[in-house]
Amino acid sequence: MSELRWDPLKNSWVIMTLGDSRRPQQFLQKRLGPCDPQGSDYERLQMQDANCPLCSGNEGRTAPEIIACRPQGSAPNEPGWNVRVIPNKFPALRIEGVLENRAEGLYDRMNGIGAHELIIETPDHNKSLADLTEAGITDVLKAYRSRMLDLRKDSRFRYIFVFKNHGVGTSSNVSHSHSQLMAVPLVPPLIANELEYCRRHFQQKERCLVCDLIRQEQQSKSRIVSDDGNFIVYAPYASRFPFELMVAPLTHHHDFAQQSDQQLQFLARTLRDILRRLRSTLRDPAYSLILHSSPPRHARMGRPDYWESLPYDYHWHIELAPKLTRLTGFEWGYGFHTNPTSPEEAAEFLRSAEPESE
Amino acid sequence: MSELRWDPLKNSWVIMTLGDSRRPQQFLQKRLGPCDPQGSDYERLQMQDANCPLCSGNEGRTAPEIIACRPQGSAPNEPGWNVRVIPNKFPALRIEGVLENRAEGLYDRMNGIGAHELIIETPDHNKSLADLTEAGITDVLKAYRSRMLDLRKDSRFRYIFVFKNHGVGTSSNVSHSHSQLMAVPLVPPLIANELEYCRRHFQQKERCLVCDLIRQEQQSKSRIVSDDGNFIVYAPYASRFPFELMVAPLTHHHDFAQQSDQQLQFLARTLRDILRRLRSTLRDPAYSLILHSSPPRHARMGRPDYWESLPYDYHWHIELAPKLTRLTGFEWGYGFHTNPTSPEEAAEFLRSAEPESE
Repeated sequence: MSELRWDPLKNSWVIMTLGDSRRPQQFLQKRLGPCDPQGSDYERLQMQDANCPLCSGNEGRTAPEIIACRPQGSAPNEPGWNVRVIPNKFPALRIEGVLENRAEGLYDRMNGIGAHELIIETPDHNKSLADLTEAGITDVLKAYRSRMLDLRKDSRFRYIFVFKNHGVGTSSNVSHSHSQLMAVPLVPPLIANELEYCRRHFQQKERCLVCDLIRQEQQSKSRIVSDDGNFIVYAPYASRFPFELMVAPLTHHHDFAQQSDQQLQFLARTLRDILRRLRSTLRDPAYSLILHSSPPRHARMGRPDYWESLPYDYHWHIELAPKLTRLTGFEWGYGFHTNPTSPEEAAEFLRSAEPESE
Repeated sequence: MSELRWDPLKNSWVIMTLGDSRRPQQFLQKRLGPCDPQGSDYERLQMQDANCPLCSGNEGRTAPEIIACRPQGSAPNEPGWNVRVIPNKFPALRIEGVLENRAEGLYDRMNGIGAHELIIETPDHNKSLADLTEAGITDVLKAYRSRMLDLRKDSRFRYIFVFKNHGVGTSSNVSHSHSQLMAVPLVPPLIANELEYCRRHFQQKERCLVCDLIRQEQQSKSRIVSDDGNFIVYAPYASRFPFELMVAPLTHHHDFAQQSDQQLQFLARTLRDILRRLRSTLRDPAYSLILHSSPPRHARMGRPDYWESLPYDYHWHIELAPKLTRLTGFEWGYGFHTNPTSPEEAAEFLRSAEPESE
C-alpha cells in the first residue's frame, strides 16, 4: 500500500511506498554492471524482448484491458489492437478505497488513492512512438483523451497526469513503447504554479500568458523549431535542459481532453515530426514527454472564483525534453537549473535536422 | 559567457550557457560506452587518477588558490594543505562585470555574474569525505564558512550555494573529492519557498517550523537515525528520495556562516558518522549534500519587514540524499515525487548499520 505525504517545509506531496518498501539490497542488485550505478536501460531493452507482456499475443499476461483501439473489430484482450490501455501491474496508487486526508502532527497524509494506467502505444515491441504513422500517434492521443474524460468523472481525482518516459528507467522497467497515466487527489506543484502565474497575467492584461509567449516567439523566430499553423514547437527562452521543447496549439484552449479529432491529428503530425528530428539530431536520446492540461472543474474545491477564469487564462501544452544531462543536487536541492546548450542553438540544430527516410 | 534567464510560465531562473553552448555531437561523444547514455562515473573515476589537477603536487595546474588550510604553514599554491579553495576552471558564472537586470519582452535576463569555486576536501585523490578524520571534515566546513562570509560582502550576490555531488557526473567531471560553491544574484526557488513557509509558521505560532519538526521527530523516534544532543539526523516524513536525510542543529540558528568552530566540529562528527552509515548500508552510493542557509541581509531588497524576522523563523540545515533512483519526467515535469522506500524503513536500516572499521 502507498500513501501521499505532505511536508510543511517543502509544502509538497510525495507518493510513498509503505509495507513493500524497496530495501538497500534491492538498490545494490541493480548495480551489478560495471558501468551505471542505476543499471542500464539498454540492457533491459534487450533483456525483455522475448516475453514482453505488452506485446501482441501476450494479452493474457496483463490485467484485462480498460480500453483499446481495435480497428479490426477484434475481441477484448486478444490481438488486433493498435493501442491498448491496461492497469499498471505495480501501481503507485490504487483506485479502491476512501480518500482520507488527515494530519499527523505537523504533517499531512492521504491514502494512496488514485489510478495508474499504461497506454501501450503499439503492438510491435520494436517500434517507438516516432516510428508510428500519423494515424497511429493520433490513436495514442485519443486514448489519452478517452481515459482523461473517464477518470475525471471520479470526483476524488483532482489531476490526471499523462506522461511518457522513452529510454529512461521507469518504475515499470518495461521497454515496450508506452505512456503512463496517473490520476491523483491533488494538483501537482508545477501545474499549480503555472495556473497561478497564468491567472496573474490574465488578471493584469486580460490575455493568455502562453498566447503572449507564442506571439513573442513568432516575432523573434530564433527559438522556433516548427510552426505549421496548428501547433508551434519552440525551445523555451529559459530552457532547463538542453533541447527542451514546448509544444503548444496556436488555438487557445485550457483542456487537452476537449480537443477535437482534427486537433489530435494535427498534434500527432507535429509530435511525429519533432520526435524524428530529435532522433536524427541526437541519435535516439532518452526523453520525457509531459502533458500540461487544466485540472477538472471539481478540483477548484471551494475556490470557485479562482477557477472560474481557467478556460481563459490557462493554455494546455506539452513539455518534451531529451535526457542528456543528469540532474544533480544543485538542481533538485535548490530548484535551480544550469543548461549547457542555449535554446537558440538547440532550435537551430533541430530546424536543420535531416528528415529521416521513411 | 553565460546569462541568467527567467521564464514567466515557470517563474524560475536558469543559468544558460551562451556562445560556448554544448552541441549535439558533444552529447553523443559521451554515449560511446555500451551501458549508460550519460557515460559512466566509474570510468571517469579511473581515468583521471594520474594527472588530477586537484591532487597535491599539481597546484600549479589550477588557478591560484583563494584560501587554503595549511596546518604545516606551507606557501600558497604549494603542497602542505589539507583543504584548498580554487576558482572553478569552467565556471557557470563569472565574477567580473556589472549585474544588468533587464526585460526581453515577457522574459527577464541578467548577466551571468557570480562566483563558482571548488573546495578541494583533501590532497589525497583516493579519499572521499567519509574517509577524512573529524578534524579534516571540520576544516572543510570552516572553508565553507570562510568563503560564505567573504562572498556575502559583495552586495551583488543574494545567495551562496554550497553543495557536494559525490560519484555523480557534474559539470566539472572531476572525481577528486570536492564541494562546490556558487554565489548568485538571486535567491533560489526552493530556498525562497522554505523561507516563506517558515515565515508563515512563525507568524502564526511564534515558533520555528524546523524546531517544531525536530521536536515531533524526537517524540515519534521512528525516522531518527542519530541524535547526539548537538545535531539530529532523520529521514523526512515526506522524503522525496530513498534514504533522503535531514541533518539539522538542535540549537536554532538561521545562518550556517555564523556557526562557531565548536558547532562545525559537532557537525563534522555527525556528517562523518552518517556518510559512513550510508556507505556501509548502500555500498558507497553516489550522493548529494546540499546546504540550506539563510540569504545575507542585503538580499531582502526593499522588503525589510519580510526579512527582519529571518533570524527567528529560519533554521539552517543540510539535505543529504544518495542517488539510487533516476528522476524521470514525472518528477521534473510535475514537481511530484514517488519514493519506493519509506523513511521509517530507511532510518531503521541506517540506525542498525554496522560501524565501518577505522
